[in-house]
Amino acid sequence: MVTSIGIVGLGLIGGSLARRAVARGYEVLAWNHTPRPYEEARRDGIQCMKTLEDLAQAKPELLILCNPLKAMPDVLTRLAPAIDPAASTLSDVGSVKGMVREQVERAGLEGCYVGAHPMAGNERSGFEASDPALYDGALWAVTVDADTQYQRFFGVARFIANGLGNELIVLDDVTHDRAAALISHMPHAVATSMINELCASPERNIAAALAAGSWRDMTRVALTDPNRTRAMIDEDRTNVEILLRHLAARLLEFADGLHRGDETAIAAYFAEGQTFRDFKAHAAMARAAQCSQGGSAALHKATLDIDPAHWQRKLLESARRGERITRLLDNYRVVIRHQPNMD
Amino acid sequence: MVTSIGIVGLGLIGGSLARRAVARGYEVLAWNHTPRPYEEARRDGIQCMKTLEDLAQAKPELLILCNPLKAMPDVLTRLAPAIDPAASTLSDVGSVKGMVREQVERAGLEGCYVGAHPMAGNERSGFEASDPALYDGALWAVTVDADTQYQRFFGVARFIANGLGNELIVLDDVTHDRAAALISHMPHAVATSMINELCASPERNIAAALAAGSWRDMTRVALTDPNRTRAMIDEDRTNVEILLRHLAARLLEFADGLHRGDETAIAAYFAEGQTFRDFKAHAAMARAAQCSQGGSAALHKATLDIDPAHWQRKLLESARRGERITRLLDNYRVVIRHQPNMD
Repeated sequence: MVTSIGIVGLGLIGGSLARRAVARGYEVLAWNHTPRPYEEARRDGIQCMKTLEDLAQAKPELLILCNPLKAMPDVLTRLAPAIDPAASTLSDVGSVKGMVREQVERAGLEGCYVGAHPMAGNERSGFEASDPALYDGALWAVTVDADTQYQRFFGVARFIANGLGNELIVLDDVTHDRAAALISHMPHAVATSMINELCASPERNIAAALAAGSWRDMTRVALTDPNRTRAMIDEDRTNVEILLRHLAARLLEFADGLHRGDETAIAAYFAEGQTFRDFKAHAAMARAAQCSQGGSAALHKATLDIDPAHWQRKLLESARRGERITRLLDNYRVVIRHQPNMD
Repeated sequence: MVTSIGIVGLGLIGGSLARRAVARGYEVLAWNHTPRPYEEARRDGIQCMKTLEDLAQAKPELLILCNPLKAMPDVLTRLAPAIDPAASTLSDVGSVKGMVREQVERAGLEGCYVGAHPMAGNERSGFEASDPALYDGALWAVTVDADTQYQRFFGVARFIANGLGNELIVLDDVTHDRAAALISHMPHAVATSMINELCASPERNIAAALAAGSWRDMTRVALTDPNRTRAMIDEDRTNVEILLRHLAARLLEFADGLHRGDETAIAAYFAEGQTFRDFKAHAAMARAAQCSQGGSAALHKATLDIDPAHWQRKLLESARRGERITRLLDNYRVVIRHQPNMD
C-alpha cells in the first residue's frame, strides 16, 4: 500500500494535493522550482527537498508531477536518471494526457507511468492559494494505455479513492483529451473571445456596467492567468481547433436562422441541448436523494469485478456508462457509483 | 413624488420589484395574467387587481410593465384606452428597449413612457422565486429619446435611486440594445451552442462527468427556460446576429492560428482582452477601498448638475465615462459615483 507521496511543484494544485495527503496520513515529500513556499509548506507537515533529484532518490512510492505543463520535458529529463522505477510509480495531474504520455515515453519512463487529472482548481494560483478542500468531491480521470501495469494503476487509484476520498474514472488519453477540450479547453478559448469582443466594442464601458451574472459567469475563466490558459489550450490544440470550428459553425448557422427569421431553425437550436438540461435535472435529483439518505447513497452503489485480462477496456466502458469508482476493495474488486447518463 | 406603483406581471422580476417597493414604503398595486400568485402577493402587502384595466384606472403614478416581452403588444393595446397619461408614467423592465419603444409608440403611449431595464435576475422564474433582495446592488439602465419628458424621467429615476436604493445609468435604446446583446443575449446563445455541441459528442457522458467549474459557469444560462432565452434573443436579433458573426470570426481566426502554430497570433489573442482583465482588477480594488471606508465610498462620489437643455446627451456621456447615478438631490442635481473605465 502506498504510504509515501512525492509532489513536484507546490502551486495551487500540487500544494493542495500535498496538504490533503498529509491530512490523510501520508508521508509527503515535495520539491518546488523555488523554495519560496517551503517555510509555509514545512509548517503544514510537508518535507521539502533541496533538489528534484533528491526527491526522486528518496523513492516515494508515488511521485506526482504537479509542475506546469511547459516545464514537463525538463522535469522528465532530470527525473529519468534519478527515479527508481522499481520503487516509484510516476504520475501527474496535467490537464492534457496524450502529450504528457509522449513526453514520458521520450524520457523512457513509460514503464512506471500512470496518468491522472483531478477535476479541481480555481482562478487563483500559488501555494498561498492552496487548500486541501480544493479536492473535496473532486473526480479524477486516471489515464491508461495497453501497456500500463495493473499494479501501478491499482496503487494510483487506491491513493485517489481510499486515500484522498475522491472518485475516479478510467480513460484512454484520446478520450480524455477530447472530453477535456469539450468541457474546459474550448470554453476557455470562447470566454477569451468574448472579452476580446467586449474590449473592441465602442460600448465597452456601458456593456461592462450592465454586465450581470451571465456575463460574469461566462467570462470568469478568461480572467485567469492568460499564460496558463494559453499553455493548456496549446497542449490540446488539435482537439481545441476542431471544437472551435464546430462551435463557429453552430454560431453562424444560428445567426443565419435569425437573419432569415426561420422559426423552425431557431426552435431546433434551442431544443438540441435538451438532453443536457434533462441530465442536469436528473443529476440534481440524484444528489438530493443521496442527501436525504444521510449521504450514504447506498442505492446507487454497486461492486464491480475487474477483469484482469481486459481491465483497461472494461473500466473505460464503465466510465462511458456514467459509473465512477469510489473505493478499491481488493486487487480486482471496486465499489462504483452510478450516475445519470445522456444515452 | 411618486408614492404609488403599478406592476404588470408578478413573475420573478415583477414580483421581486413589487415586494421591494412595498418594503420601501410604496403603495403597490399589481395585476397578473393569472391570479395564481395573488394570495401570496396579498400577504406581502401587494394590492392585486382583477383586470389590467382596473390597474390602469387606479392611476398609479408609475406603471411598470414586468410581463414577458412577447405579451407586450397585447398588454399595450389593452392599456392604451385605460391609462391616464396625465396621472401615470409608463415604464417597463424589458431586456430590449428599441422594440419595446416601437410597440409603445404603436399603442400611442410614447408621451408618457420612460424605458428601464434592471440588471437583476437568476435562472428561476415565477412569483414563488421572487425576492426583494434580487435587486440588492442592481444597476438599472433608464432609456430615453429626444422626446422623453424630463419630469417623467425624473420620477422614474428617483423611484429607482432614492426609492429602491439602486443605481442607474441613462442610455438611448440603440446603445442599450447593443450593450445588452454583447454582455447578455449573445452569451446566452453561445452557452446554448456549447451544450448543443456536448449533446452531439460521442464523449458526452465522459465530458459531463469531467465537467467542473468552467463548464458549469459557462453553460449555466443555457439551463434556464429556453423559451425565455429564445424570446430575449429574438427581440434583439439584429444585434445578436452581428455579434455571433463577430464571435465566430474570432473563433475561426484563433483556430487558424492554432492550426498554423502561429505563436504571434496566439499571443495576440490572449493579450487582446487585457483591458478587461485590468478593468476587473481595478473594479475589485475600488470595491475593496469602498468597504474599508465603512461603505461610505465618499471618495468616489460627486454631484452632477443636469443641463435641462441637453440632459439626455449629458447623462449618456456621464454613463460612457463610467459614472452611475446613486441619488437624485433635486430636479436638476444628482449624486454620481465614479467607476473604473476601459478608456
